[in-house]
Amino acid sequence: MRSTSVGVFKVATKGPGDVSGLISLIVSGAIDPAAILAILGKTEGNGGVNDFTREYAVAALCTALAPKLGLTPHEVEQRIAFVMSGGTEGVLSPHITVFTRAEIRSPPGISGKRLSIGMAQTRDFLPEELGRSAQIAETAKAVKAAMADAGISDPADVHFVQIKCPLLTSERVEAAAARGNKTATTSSYSSMAYSRGASALGVAVALGEVTSDIRDEDVLRRHDLFSKVASTSSGIELMHNVVIVLGNSDTSASAFEIGHAVMNDAIDAPAVVSALQSVGLEVAPQAKAGRELVNIFAKAEASPDGSVRGFRHTMLEDTDISSTRHARAAVGGLIAGLAGTGMVYVSGGAEHQGPAGGGPVAAIARLF
Amino acid sequence: MRSTSVGVFKVATKGPGDVSGLISLIVSGAIDPAAILAILGKTEGNGGVNDFTREYAVAALCTALAPKLGLTPHEVEQRIAFVMSGGTEGVLSPHITVFTRAEIRSPPGISGKRLSIGMAQTRDFLPEELGRSAQIAETAKAVKAAMADAGISDPADVHFVQIKCPLLTSERVEAAAARGNKTATTSSYSSMAYSRGASALGVAVALGEVTSDIRDEDVLRRHDLFSKVASTSSGIELMHNVVIVLGNSDTSASAFEIGHAVMNDAIDAPAVVSALQSVGLEVAPQAKAGRELVNIFAKAEASPDGSVRGFRHTMLEDTDISSTRHARAAVGGLIAGLAGTGMVYVSGGAEHQGPAGGGPVAAIARLF
Amino acid sequence: MRSTSVGVFKVATKGPGDVSGLISLIVSGAIDPAAILAILGKTEGNGGVNDFTREYAVAALCTALAPKLGLTPHEVEQRIAFVMSGGTEGVLSPHITVFTRAEIRSPPGISGKRLSIGMAQTRDFLPEELGRSAQIAETAKAVKAAMADAGISDPADVHFVQIKCPLLTSERVEAAAARGNKTATTSSYSSMAYSRGASALGVAVALGEVTSDIRDEDVLRRHDLFSKVASTSSGIELMHNVVIVLGNSDTSASAFEIGHAVMNDAIDAPAVVSALQSVGLEVAPQAKAGRELVNIFAKAEASPDGSVRGFRHTMLEDTDISSTRHARAAVGGLIAGLAGTGMVYVSGGAEHQGPAGGGPVAAIARLF
Amino acid sequence: MRSTSVGVFKVATKGPGDVSGLISLIVSGAIDPAAILAILGKTEGNGGVNDFTREYAVAALCTALAPKLGLTPHEVEQRIAFVMSGGTEGVLSPHITVFTRAEIRSPPGISGKRLSIGMAQTRDFLPEELGRSAQIAETAKAVKAAMADAGISDPADVHFVQIKCPLLTSERVEAAAARGNKTATTSSYSSMAYSRGASALGVAVALGEVTSDIRDEDVLRRHDLFSKVASTSSGIELMHNVVIVLGNSDTSASAFEIGHAVMNDAIDAPAVVSALQSVGLEVAPQAKAGRELVNIFAKAEASPDGSVRGFRHTMLEDTDISSTRHARAAVGGLIAGLAGTGMVYVSGGAEHQGPAGGGPVAAIARLF
Repeated sequence: MRSTSVGVFKVATKGPGDVSGLISLIVSGAIDPAAILAILGKTEGNGGVNDFTREYAVAALCTALAPKLGLTPHEVEQRIAFVMSGGTEGVLSPHITVFTRAEIRSPPGISGKRLSIGMAQTRDFLPEELGRSAQIAETAKAVKAAMADAGISDPADVHFVQIKCPLLTSERVEAAAARGNKTATTSSYSSMAYSRGASALGVAVALGEVTSDIRDEDVLRRHDLFSKVASTSSGIELMHNVVIVLGNSDTSASAFEIGHAVMNDAIDAPAVVSALQSVGLEVAPQAKAGRELVNIFAKAEASPDGSVRGFRHTMLEDTDISSTRHARAAVGGLIAGLAGTGMVYVSGGAEHQGPAGGGPVAAIARLF
Repeated sequence: MRSTSVGVFKVATKGPGDVSGLISLIVSGAIDPAAILAILGKTEGNGGVNDFTREYAVAALCTALAPKLGLTPHEVEQRIAFVMSGGTEGVLSPHITVFTRAEIRSPPGISGKRLSIGMAQTRDFLPEELGRSAQIAETAKAVKAAMADAGISDPADVHFVQIKCPLLTSERVEAAAARGNKTATTSSYSSMAYSRGASALGVAVALGEVTSDIRDEDVLRRHDLFSKVASTSSGIELMHNVVIVLGNSDTSASAFEIGHAVMNDAIDAPAVVSALQSVGLEVAPQAKAGRELVNIFAKAEASPDGSVRGFRHTMLEDTDISSTRHARAAVGGLIAGLAGTGMVYVSGGAEHQGPAGGGPVAAIARLF
Repeated sequence: MRSTSVGVFKVATKGPGDVSGLISLIVSGAIDPAAILAILGKTEGNGGVNDFTREYAVAALCTALAPKLGLTPHEVEQRIAFVMSGGTEGVLSPHITVFTRAEIRSPPGISGKRLSIGMAQTRDFLPEELGRSAQIAETAKAVKAAMADAGISDPADVHFVQIKCPLLTSERVEAAAARGNKTATTSSYSSMAYSRGASALGVAVALGEVTSDIRDEDVLRRHDLFSKVASTSSGIELMHNVVIVLGNSDTSASAFEIGHAVMNDAIDAPAVVSALQSVGLEVAPQAKAGRELVNIFAKAEASPDGSVRGFRHTMLEDTDISSTRHARAAVGGLIAGLAGTGMVYVSGGAEHQGPAGGGPVAAIARLF
Repeated sequence: MRSTSVGVFKVATKGPGDVSGLISLIVSGAIDPAAILAILGKTEGNGGVNDFTREYAVAALCTALAPKLGLTPHEVEQRIAFVMSGGTEGVLSPHITVFTRAEIRSPPGISGKRLSIGMAQTRDFLPEELGRSAQIAETAKAVKAAMADAGISDPADVHFVQIKCPLLTSERVEAAAARGNKTATTSSYSSMAYSRGASALGVAVALGEVTSDIRDEDVLRRHDLFSKVASTSSGIELMHNVVIVLGNSDTSASAFEIGHAVMNDAIDAPAVVSALQSVGLEVAPQAKAGRELVNIFAKAEASPDGSVRGFRHTMLEDTDISSTRHARAAVGGLIAGLAGTGMVYVSGGAEHQGPAGGGPVAAIARLF
């Protein structure tokens, strides 16, 4: 019995502070603001430490949605999961993807599994737990809870798991030290990678992609351990993990389907094609009737060994441009070429998210 | 009667000053230094005004080749056409492509047109002629001379025309002013675009792609006027144009073939596929026996209207990274994905080289 | 008879969205929000086209001040003059300077002229008027009105004139064309310089620093025409000029004094010392009792001839870092060294604001 | 008895490959190429990992000097100590400083200690010795040898010690691992800081600035341990340390004097003044007759605690521009302002070279 309706809306933005597109959809009745569960965005900052376009975008969205929801901006930020990924290098085009979910009574007569979305949170972590087995285990539990929330029981039906996770600050490192404990790293920047990596491994454990006996020392070292559907990003504003599971479920009456593939390296065109085909699409221009691409979600990184298929790349030695910017630009160019649009979600920093130098790529199609 | 042998050697470099790969090929006898006609390279600088990796690479190559040719480094630079394109953003991999040509007596029994290369030069230009009809007309003449040098009579057999052209310096602008003449621009940086654009239009005139009555005011303004095979880059070291024509000819006994297509925008994947197919290749991994990809040569640029297929890009507003770096990274990612290698020649700045936002893409295959 | 009280508050910010320092001063009663006239800030973006920290800071300030003033955020933006300068390169430290003004009844018994602030606006400009004599003449009128508002009659008492001015967009250029008129330039980026330059010349005319017969073709060309106290910045959000005059007046009962000097080039240390001395201060550490430095306001630019005192600089040829970032870092380092603090206002883009390669430098001291 | 003549020549360069100024001085007889001991240069790259202007400058100098010395370019590189510091941010001006030394028979009648230069080398290090006590101890020995070579016995006469030191590569790390030993770090980039830091501590030990019982774990951690005269830079081309000691000696008949001070932070103007005064000079413009500034040598860094004199800086959080570029620009601006010229040597990366956030500053004056 289908009981859930899930919507996906891709909205172009004219700048990080632009909320006009979303508000228009709310005003027109296309989006019920109370149904908004999560917003994933690409903003046009550098994607690095001093990328303020992410928090600016979240602040603008919370301020704009507050009167629509009868909440304060701060309460909006607590209610909706905002994941902003900075960096629209090359042909990537700034936009947000809005996910809605609502209960329905009279489901339409549709067949097959459809897009479903579920969310869950871990408990707050101690600083010394970040990037270690505690974070892995708790994340795995939350992934299972989010799957249940999405009405998904089979791990094979999970196609993209977006996670927001904490990072270390000097205050947090000192708090651990005051308890006599050492953190995985003392660097804020490095802690982002540890937290992303452990969170991704939590997904891998939950979905049975790896065995659950991962040791602390495997994090950021055992590149052979990874999830094919995890996409994680760390932020300073929380001390727990927020897990968003996207998959297909027969409890959903959504007009959308999701599928995925794994890029083995940054130039893995066949994987992108495979992700498109997994939701019944082809390489652009689309030939199939009755289906259209909504968005592609992918993670990109510069391969840590300094080469792609045996050929040296220069991303890791460039002191002018960070490697994450290079990687997003290149992978974004490839995906945009195959998808026929630069308005896709390509995010950087892919520790334990797909194989080293590669990453997961998911696609959502609308059926009509 | 086939009388010419043309060779193409793609050589990886470990840095802009690395000549070891080329020297090894000379020492092993694979390359006769006296047969080297032109070297096109991708170096790992920023591709901008202060990219010194280009002149460093040329200096290192001239110094290394001088004893092999019994010439001074300066004489080597006069003899061989060096075209270094800075910028290996994303997955692009630094390398040089060495073109050789030699007369042969006993041609092998081969059929069909094969890769041919021809060179020619214009007279020196006055500063006030750059970016204007004089440069267009003289370049057109030189393209025809280079075609004759390559043994090509049909413009349809020309697939890539690489041109080195001058730029304006403040001294050159003043010299023109002292004669009472105004130059097309007083900015060195802008003059590079004018010179590239007029040179590309010269190719278009020579090949009949446009009518010959192009006015001075059309340069950099009439985006509808362009060549589908021109690739031009300006440098401070010369006051004339050096033209290198690459095409197919039945006078060539080369083991290589060249073909091309035109990218209509920066995400035109079908054009890249078409370029590969034009020399009997497929998308990576190659399925066809008897043929292998040697290199792809393409020009990339941020579309001047600020969007790609209707979606806003941010390349032209980025004060941190120049738009040419963005464009190379994105187009390089797409071509590398389809070709299966990042060791391809993708160069920025495509005025009148393909349509606005797009550019020519040529492929060379080796037959065996 | 002294009738005005002017306050200056320098407040550190922890990020572009941080308003906590200002709100604390309001909550503690130190600042009456209704008295705020203008806020000048240094935000930590790149200071270029895609610097969103400026609009983010203004949005955050307006949202935070709205409930304090009983206005909407939009009304706050109309009421208070916000001037955000992006770029805190090197030792520059992000902060805002809040200027307040209030009428007083019982002036304290103080002697000498004290800090005064006045504001005025021009009418809206037509796009074709920007960067030309109309903008110069109207700005000159507004400067005189702002002087009157500040209670200043002698131009020698004016020490810093901050102006916000419009820029051209493609829509505005087209609107002019539809009327059969050409704008000074068709490039948005270039129009910023034209508008800044004409606005600065308007200051120069108003203060008698140049004669009033400046021709359109002098803008951005006659480097010998400049104001020693103008500081102008252009923004997309307005079509008129907002003029803030800072000077000394005997109508003011302020605890502050302002003075200025002119840097003849980017390394003009004596000018910075002179600006400090003009308000009774010395080079750091301050030796004089009864006076302390509040802030320094300066404009910086890379000298357009490519050299500083005969020695080549590389700011204008750097494709990785824009010249305005270089200039702010260098001039900021010098001023911070002499002032003893990096929390100073150094802004880039100094067309007709001081001599070529130099710029105005003003200092405000508090007397106690 | 004075037996040594030391010369110092500061030569502007038009680009990293420009050797024309030096060659002119050799051709004119002003410089005897056989007397060249060391060349310190500022080149206009980014000063980071992919700054090829350093090796390009060295290659150009070796190629140009080879015929003058009757050596191969490689032999020139072995004979003369080349230290190229990348990064001429802000007002810094590209140049080289050439140090010559020759024996003399009939010394002029001069009084006081004069500029002397001495060189020495350590043995080759094992990779696992870098950044640790072995490198410290061996460097200390070499500093003493270089002092002896310079005819200096009193550590107080040493004013600048420039060191070139090795770094780790993955091959070197693996070689250590194959012997069962761990290196101080496995990252090439980090190893540069370790090697610079240990080398600076070696100077501190040799000059008695710290006690000799420094432990491995103090390197890069005990910011209170530092040398006031060390300036170290690491390069891939060597496995030993090259030590250049600059000081004053009564064995020298040089026309030059050297002195130094220590900047306690990046805005320590009084320290720069003190360095100038230590060689009898004043702040620009120079008032004293008979003496002129030749060059200033300084190290700069972003203070690791994120603030300068209590005010937050943003250098360490900037993902667009590396902190070393920010620091050079700011400190270069300050020094240039006080010295009256941007043609000064300001280098980045100051581990254990002066206090945290500060660095040594030395000045050389010519007496006439």
